[in-house]
Amino acid sequence: MVPVPNNNSSSEEQKFQVRKLQISDKNKGFIELLRQLTICDSVSDKDFEDRFRELSALGDDHIVSVVEDESSGKIIATGSIFIEKKFLRNCGKVGHIEDVAVDSNARGLKLGKKIIAFLTEHAHLMGCYKLILLRQELEDFERAVNLSSMTDKSQMQEDIISGHKQFVKAIMEQIIHAEKNLEDT
Amino acid sequence: MVPVPNNNSSSEEQKFQVRKLQISDKNKGFIELLRQLTICDSVSDKDFEDRFRELSALGDDHIVSVVEDESSGKIIATGSIFIEKKFLRNCGKVGHIEDVAVDSNARGLKLGKKIIAFLTEHAHLMGCYKLILLRQELEDFERAVNLSSMTDKSQMQEDIISGHKQFVKAIMEQIIHAEKNLEDT
Repeated sequence: MVPVPNNNSSSEEQKFQVRKLQISDKNKGFIELLRQLTICDSVSDKDFEDRFRELSALGDDHIVSVVEDESSGKIIATGSIFIEKKFLRNCGKVGHIEDVAVDSNARGLKLGKKIIAFLTEHAHLMGCYKLILLRQELEDFERAVNLSSMTDKSQMQEDIISGHKQFVKAIMEQIIHAEKNLEDT
Repeated sequence: MVPVPNNNSSSEEQKFQVRKLQISDKNKGFIELLRQLTICDSVSDKDFEDRFRELSALGDDHIVSVVEDESSGKIIATGSIFIEKKFLRNCGKVGHIEDVAVDSNARGLKLGKKIIAFLTEHAHLMGCYKLILLRQELEDFERAVNLSSMTDKSQMQEDIISGHKQFVKAIMEQIIHAEKNLEDT
C-alpha cells in the first residue's frame, strides 16, 4: 500500500492549539491582530490589564480565545464568546461569538474554523440553547480576507485565497449546524 | 384661544414609565409577556430568583427593563440590554438590546419605542460606541405583532394595527440614529 504523503498543512493544523488569552499576549501582537479587523489604536498596558481583569472576573461567561504561533511567538488568530443569561426559553442562555480575526499571513491553516469550533464547544458546555455570530462580524472578516488577498496576492497560493473566500460561507454552515446540535441536546 | 383637547393617548404615554425589573414582577405577568415573544414555559420561583440575582450581580452591565400598567398591576412591556466589553476600538463597549416585547393588548402606546429609548440612553451613559439590536429580535417582534393583529382584530383600531406594522421600521431607524449619536460623542 502506498503510504499517505506527509501533509504539511495538516501537521501545521495540529500544531496550532486554541487557548485562552493571557495577559502577556499584549506583547505578542494581540492588539495588532485586532487592528486587522477594525479600528484599534494602541492600547496602554494599564487599559489592557484593566479590561483583562474585568473579563476574567466574568469567568466562563466571557472567554477570549487565541492561537499562538510558537515558532514566532505571535498571536495569529482570535475570537471571543460571551454567554448571555435570559429569562425566556426557561431561563436559557445564548452564546454570542464576536471579534473573530486571523492574521493575514496565517490564512489557509483553518485557524478561523478552529477558533469557531473552540467557542462552539464552550457554548455547548455552558448549556446554551442558541449561538449567535453577527452577520456584521462575518462581513468584517470577509472584508479583511478580500483586502489581504488583493494586497498580498504574491504571498498567497491561489487555493488559499479561494479557500478563504469560502470560509465565511463555511462558518455560517457550521453555526447553523452547531445551533442544531445545541437544540438537540 | 381654543384649549387643546385632552389627548388620552399621550396622557397614557406619560403614565407608563420604564423601570428596572423587580423580583416581584414574576407575579405580575412578566413570564407570560415573554411567552408572547418565544417559547417560555412556566419558570419556578427559585429559577426566577436565581437568574434575577445572577443578572443583578452584573449591575449596570445587564439591565432588564419593564413597563408596569399600574391600574391592572401587569407588566405590559419589556426589553433588556447587556454591555459587552471588548479589547478592540481601544477597549470599547457595545450595547446589545435583546428580548423587546410589548403585550398584545397594550399596542399603540409606543411602549416599544419607550423601552428602546430607555435602553439606548443606558448604552450612552455606559459609554458604548455601538448599539446592536439583532434583526432576529425585530423579526420575532414583527411576527408577534402580525399574529396578534390577525387573531385580535376586533379589539384593535385600524390605526393601531398599521402603526405597529411600521414599528419595526421605526425601531431600525432609531437604532441607526442612536448609533450615530454614540459615534458622535
